[in-house]
Amino acid sequence: MKTPNKAGKPRQALDQVSELTTNRLSVYLRCLNALEDAGVLTVSSQSLAEQFHLNAAQIRKDLAYFGEFGVRGVGYYVGDLKRHLRQILGLDRKLRVAIMGAGNLGLALADYPGFRQEGFEIAALFDNLSAKVGQRSRGGVPIHDIHDLKKIARRDGISIAVIAVPAPSAQHVVALVVASGIRAVLNFSPGTLEVPDDVKLKSVDLTVSLESLSFFLAQCEGDEK
Amino acid sequence: MKTPNKAGKPRQALDQVSELTTNRLSVYLRCLNALEDAGVLTVSSQSLAEQFHLNAAQIRKDLAYFGEFGVRGVGYYVGDLKRHLRQILGLDRKLRVAIMGAGNLGLALADYPGFRQEGFEIAALFDNLSAKVGQRSRGGVPIHDIHDLKKIARRDGISIAVIAVPAPSAQHVVALVVASGIRAVLNFSPGTLEVPDDVKLKSVDLTVSLESLSFFLAQCEGDEK
Repeated sequence: MKTPNKAGKPRQALDQVSELTTNRLSVYLRCLNALEDAGVLTVSSQSLAEQFHLNAAQIRKDLAYFGEFGVRGVGYYVGDLKRHLRQILGLDRKLRVAIMGAGNLGLALADYPGFRQEGFEIAALFDNLSAKVGQRSRGGVPIHDIHDLKKIARRDGISIAVIAVPAPSAQHVVALVVASGIRAVLNFSPGTLEVPDDVKLKSVDLTVSLESLSFFLAQCEGDEK
Repeated sequence: MKTPNKAGKPRQALDQVSELTTNRLSVYLRCLNALEDAGVLTVSSQSLAEQFHLNAAQIRKDLAYFGEFGVRGVGYYVGDLKRHLRQILGLDRKLRVAIMGAGNLGLALADYPGFRQEGFEIAALFDNLSAKVGQRSRGGVPIHDIHDLKKIARRDGISIAVIAVPAPSAQHVVALVVASGIRAVLNFSPGTLEVPDDVKLKSVDLTVSLESLSFFLAQCEGDEK
């Protein structure tokens, strides 16, 4: 089995790996975690697809893009493939995350168990309310004054900021985040935000999920008519 | 311009509309809202694609699936297309949502402004802590005892449940939701949940979003080496 040969791919091609592909890699990683927990050592793309309702050809295509991970007659070694996927996704080092806004959403995200599991460390919460500054989330994440963002982001090596402030403050807070040198932003605030070209912004729109359930219910009602 | 002819499509074909398609329809709807707010009356698929970084061919394909909405030489009428999309997504009636768990996440979701905007009504929160029952979220959503779920779900006509309880309680709570007759579930709890075939379960994995940022950062670091 070869190691993933990122250097062998032209940089431009790698840049074009779509967000949909990285999302699928995340899903494969989640599946491999489950298999490893169940003591499974090897798995074929076919079996992976069947167990987790995925597409076998798509799995092979996605993985082939990053190197040759499969072994003829065996499939994939679960532990090896998991390690490679973590490396591709940049999860082979601890990434420190700051959450902007210590309201209900910020506090909920600070203690969200899934983040820690994949190696993200929620290092700090930031707020502008003096009553909150100096407190901690239930899980122990300290709440800092947003004016100290730049200092603490450098000191703690924070590389990702999560925006969990009300929409009217979001653009102002993003500007502070960018000024502090953080280059990756996950936005939970509704509405669009502007960032410079060298900053990656990803927005989570929770309404989209509810609308897909609404579509399902509308179809069911159509059936019953 | 014809009205969307759902009846003209075989039911089986409509059932296979992928979640990715409905997610894109949600995104188009969000774009049309922005255009309407800006006073724009008509838009071509090309211009829609350019303004919102979408794919024009994909837009035409997605919309053509549900009917003929475009007008030669004009493009789409923003208001008409918006109304059609809302109808396709089942947003032309108010859907009532219950949130299971009045912790930080549940309270944050109860007051999430995006839901209300698209016609979802967060009608109730449910918890099992007597100290919380009888209270309200900051936005005024009442917190009920989870033992009253069945009664209140029927009384208030609740059709979607959001799972915002800690992972160890999630499967138990989903069973209560299903027993109360709710057929659509949005799950924020990490880990897999089981529901009967006639219940639609959609899980939001917040870790996937962070991992796509991690991938971006790993690529940047590769560039700098």
